[in-house]
Amino acid sequence: LVPGKKVAVVSNDAIWGIYGKTVMVSLEKAGFAVHYMAVPAGEKAKNMASVEKLCEELVDASFDRQCAVLALGGGVVGDLAGFVAAVYMRGIHFIQVPTSLLAQVDSSVGGKVAVNLLSGKNLVGAFYQPKLVLIDLDVLSTLPPREFTCGLAEVIKYGIIRDAEFFEYLENHHREIQQKQPDAMLHIVKRSCQIKAEVVEYDEKEGGLRAILNFGHTFAHVIELMAGYGKITHGEAVASGMLYAARLSNKMGLCDASTVKRIDDILKKNNLPRKFDFGGNEGVLKLFYRDKKVENATLKFILTEYIGSVTISEKVLEGRLVDLLLQDVM
Amino acid sequence: LVPGKKVAVVSNDAIWGIYGKTVMVSLEKAGFAVHYMAVPAGEKAKNMASVEKLCEELVDASFDRQCAVLALGGGVVGDLAGFVAAVYMRGIHFIQVPTSLLAQVDSSVGGKVAVNLLSGKNLVGAFYQPKLVLIDLDVLSTLPPREFTCGLAEVIKYGIIRDAEFFEYLENHHREIQQKQPDAMLHIVKRSCQIKAEVVEYDEKEGGLRAILNFGHTFAHVIELMAGYGKITHGEAVASGMLYAARLSNKMGLCDASTVKRIDDILKKNNLPRKFDFGGNEGVLKLFYRDKKVENATLKFILTEYIGSVTISEKVLEGRLVDLLLQDVM
Repeated sequence: LVPGKKVAVVSNDAIWGIYGKTVMVSLEKAGFAVHYMAVPAGEKAKNMASVEKLCEELVDASFDRQCAVLALGGGVVGDLAGFVAAVYMRGIHFIQVPTSLLAQVDSSVGGKVAVNLLSGKNLVGAFYQPKLVLIDLDVLSTLPPREFTCGLAEVIKYGIIRDAEFFEYLENHHREIQQKQPDAMLHIVKRSCQIKAEVVEYDEKEGGLRAILNFGHTFAHVIELMAGYGKITHGEAVASGMLYAARLSNKMGLCDASTVKRIDDILKKNNLPRKFDFGGNEGVLKLFYRDKKVENATLKFILTEYIGSVTISEKVLEGRLVDLLLQDVM
Repeated sequence: LVPGKKVAVVSNDAIWGIYGKTVMVSLEKAGFAVHYMAVPAGEKAKNMASVEKLCEELVDASFDRQCAVLALGGGVVGDLAGFVAAVYMRGIHFIQVPTSLLAQVDSSVGGKVAVNLLSGKNLVGAFYQPKLVLIDLDVLSTLPPREFTCGLAEVIKYGIIRDAEFFEYLENHHREIQQKQPDAMLHIVKRSCQIKAEVVEYDEKEGGLRAILNFGHTFAHVIELMAGYGKITHGEAVASGMLYAARLSNKMGLCDASTVKRIDDILKKNNLPRKFDFGGNEGVLKLFYRDKKVENATLKFILTEYIGSVTISEKVLEGRLVDLLLQDVM
């Protein structure tokens, strides 16, 4: 997979402390020289300054186009390292080793990499496919509980957008999943990756179908922006976002109340948040227009018709959206 | 070409002062809102900080994926604006309107975009094709003489690497070209673009053939790095670089002395530099290894066999290279 002899492992000190030695020994056994590049933990590391710093480090370590960048960590590490791999010398080899549930089922599959701007998340990036995504379920044992829960939000999303049977499995096995029972984990990670890969294969660059992966995300991005990066996790924002999307779908007559209730219930069972205080004013609307899916100033939402099926709507009226947001002012 | 209704024109104040109004009126007539984004003139603007600043500006002006970035300027503007277009929201529409001869015959064709790091030129970038490259030869009338001359270096390069007849045309028509006689200009710009497009079509991502476009450039990059960006133009560095490459080719028995002489003569006729003081020490070698074409620490040079044909060599010995560089210590 990698013709060169050097691998730069991008990670943070916490993850490197647990798995660094294993990864290093394994790569060295395979004949690679390993160069560890530390990034601070958390979303705030995912910026252009980090990209520049990591690229300068690669130059100093004489990395050429035959070498590889390996992301060892969660979504932040994967997105940042992936963007570095995409742009350093116009692209060098890239390998993902996701260590969080969220990264395993979502960000490591599909080739989207990006960093944040001050004014919004993932606004600078690329479509760049890794040569390999290596998922080791054992690493979930050291994952903090809150991060595990937040990964489940995306797992639930796959059921809603594409697979009613899978959603039922999640409803019926939430205890096994909470206990990280190996068979259950293998099933949900595998099925999630399959669904994501299936959707991305049809549509790598988000012309149409890929947008369904953003179910709940239009709300989630605004929630993350308002809460401030790092205050609320991405998965938590997606959980609330999915419920808002479902309630909006119901308000527009697309789905019935029982669909909203099943989504509400499964989030509750998995200790995921279901509301957010968008504040009492209409200024929040402007934030929705910052979404990358906005085209010619038309808001686009992914709405659900029933569990297992979603649709893309450009017909959401601003007034209806504001009504929904103001309902939950706390 | 552009489904959206907004175009961001990246340029510098000098070029915008001359052509801004024409471009703006033309775009507005076609129904676009024009947003001018100024960058400082010169190579030093081509950095990651500029990329970030321009992307933030695009967010503030509510640019979405349907909109376009238009580069109005020379290579610096094109490379920077193109990289911004490539990474903003993972890619928006891009249009090149090159205003320098160098940009018209080289950087605007082929889809390479990039910015510099402190440690080297074009080390962060992408392969990103513009939707349109619009070349208006009339703009050459306002081009400073030194920049015109520097564009000719790349024109000469196309003759050396691919077309002996074109090289002869350049030898025989250097007066018409110096006077920017329209027929001559049309011929040399058109033929240069054809040759570049031909090579890039075979090999977009520099697996093999595309590398021949870098004839003289391995030397040129080191010259620019040592001189300091902006002290010497890219074309001047390429001119000297081509003569070094020819002399190296001759030293290695690949081409005869008459080939070196023809290259020396044509550079002289066009007032292009032919030497550079690499300094008296061997530390310069390290700079050659920073080239993007270095693979597994092997130096790669594009060498010429005769006018119209070049070859890629990995057999250049460090000692031979150092000998060549030390010959010209002034």
